[in-house]
Amino acid sequence: MESVMILDIAGTAAFSVAGTFAAMEKKLDIFGIFIIAFVTALGGGTLRDVLIGEVPVKWLLTLNSGLIVLLSTIAALLFTNVIRNYYNVLLVFDSIGLGFFTVVGIHTGISLGFNPVICIALGTITACFGGVIRDISLNNIPLIFEKEIYATACILGGIVFYVLLKLGVPKMPLDIICLVSIVLFRLLSVRYEWQLPRIWKEEKLD
Amino acid sequence: MESVMILDIAGTAAFSVAGTFAAMEKKLDIFGIFIIAFVTALGGGTLRDVLIGEVPVKWLLTLNSGLIVLLSTIAALLFTNVIRNYYNVLLVFDSIGLGFFTVVGIHTGISLGFNPVICIALGTITACFGGVIRDISLNNIPLIFEKEIYATACILGGIVFYVLLKLGVPKMPLDIICLVSIVLFRLLSVRYEWQLPRIWKEEKLD
Amino acid sequence: MESVMILDIAGTAAFSVAGTFAAMEKKLDIFGIFIIAFVTALGGGTLRDVLIGEVPVKWLLTLNSGLIVLLSTIAALLFTNVIRNYYNVLLVFDSIGLGFFTVVGIHTGISLGFNPVICIALGTITACFGGVIRDISLNNIPLIFEKEIYATACILGGIVFYVLLKLGVPKMPLDIICLVSIVLFRLLSVRYEWQLPRIWKEEKLD
Repeated sequence: MESVMILDIAGTAAFSVAGTFAAMEKKLDIFGIFIIAFVTALGGGTLRDVLIGEVPVKWLLTLNSGLIVLLSTIAALLFTNVIRNYYNVLLVFDSIGLGFFTVVGIHTGISLGFNPVICIALGTITACFGGVIRDISLNNIPLIFEKEIYATACILGGIVFYVLLKLGVPKMPLDIICLVSIVLFRLLSVRYEWQLPRIWKEEKLD
Repeated sequence: MESVMILDIAGTAAFSVAGTFAAMEKKLDIFGIFIIAFVTALGGGTLRDVLIGEVPVKWLLTLNSGLIVLLSTIAALLFTNVIRNYYNVLLVFDSIGLGFFTVVGIHTGISLGFNPVICIALGTITACFGGVIRDISLNNIPLIFEKEIYATACILGGIVFYVLLKLGVPKMPLDIICLVSIVLFRLLSVRYEWQLPRIWKEEKLD
Repeated sequence: MESVMILDIAGTAAFSVAGTFAAMEKKLDIFGIFIIAFVTALGGGTLRDVLIGEVPVKWLLTLNSGLIVLLSTIAALLFTNVIRNYYNVLLVFDSIGLGFFTVVGIHTGISLGFNPVICIALGTITACFGGVIRDISLNNIPLIFEKEIYATACILGGIVFYVLLKLGVPKMPLDIICLVSIVLFRLLSVRYEWQLPRIWKEEKLD
């Protein structure tokens, strides 16, 4: 359980940074930036906990989650003068958060005895929902519906996780490989413009 | 309880098809199509279950709901080459889903001993919310706020349900009449452009 | 507990009126107006209760909340012919609702033994979320992300609450001062265009 907590903290920090840069792009005030960082970082875990009935949700019970978001947001803001391209920073931290939270969500599902397919779905929800409400709040088209692989990276990482689990890989390397594979799937898909197949005829473009 | 489960499966299948066509119209990739079908089909029931505290929500506990969505989505995709007008197919399946899920929601409320007004509200939430998050996700104006009768069809169907219940109509025909009346209200309202009255002066148009 | 219930009723009525005028601006039909009034008035409390696990949410258990929304909506509609500027009425009632619901949310947190920071956060969520889903539903940019002070007014009011509590001010005047200070913070911020500081360079405008 210890190690899941570390993954959770790392994911929270990564998504807070991603949220901060997304909010900076939209020129929100400092309080708006913090709210966006908060919903990005804690939105996915909150939805997961509400769906499984783990309430009161844990960021109500201690100040820790809020503090991690606050410190990560401040750290991100200190670097804004140095950084030229917000989108790239957002992309990298968003991908890292995606990896950490997928692993956390899978372990949550396993601890409840859920089916592997459901565990992967729960990991994907944990990882993706914070970004979805960030994007809806900022009036962006959610990244999850953009062309590149997004939720699909979480699902592929979840499949990697269960294949390695079957092969008897122990927990620590298992988590790390799953996490790294999600970050790589996501970043490579953006770099090389990987896309999932589409159904309709291409002539219908416009 | 058996019969409510059948209604639930039928509603899930109908909304999955509606979601698939809505996602096809927006040219999402195959994974995006499945996500939209899933939230359309299971969003309303999920909100209902979270509001009444029936958690973990049931699609986390078995693969059945996900499988129904998957099979319905595949079935819908197989027909896309034949179908010329996505909007009409979407409309018909959306209306059918609306009917099934209203009846399911009313029975959920009754089993918890809620007031008839609340049962109709719960039926309306179950029926409408999946479509609302589908529309928000696809950046469409939610159908529920468009001109035609939508949630109002569920409420009228709910009133038909309770009137017939008072008259002593047994459960099976009761459910079927309620369901058919909702589908008819919705389809006729679109066909004949029925609208609810508006309050403001018409001169204020633009 | 009695007095919190009165605050809750007053906040529900104020937000119903604000929701009615927001829906009138968008020329929704009478049913759409009622839905918007309902989600504006009960959305924040519903999210709060789901997050703390107080389910079934209370508007499912009695008709009272729905009736307050209905009566407030009808009252608001009766005045629409007299009122020239919907936006100002919306602003005043929205600010009043903000004040009442922040106090209700803080007391909910206190009754659960939460940390003061979390209580203020819970008050802010209770106060702000109804307006956020109203604005998203109406396809407006949420007021919470606009330039003026919004959620910040709730937080400042919460800080006033805890400072006075430390000073030994008894409950009734405490609630009233907190409430009035939130309404004033909000209205004065709009009148005098108070803004929170922004981080980016101003030359980057547009």
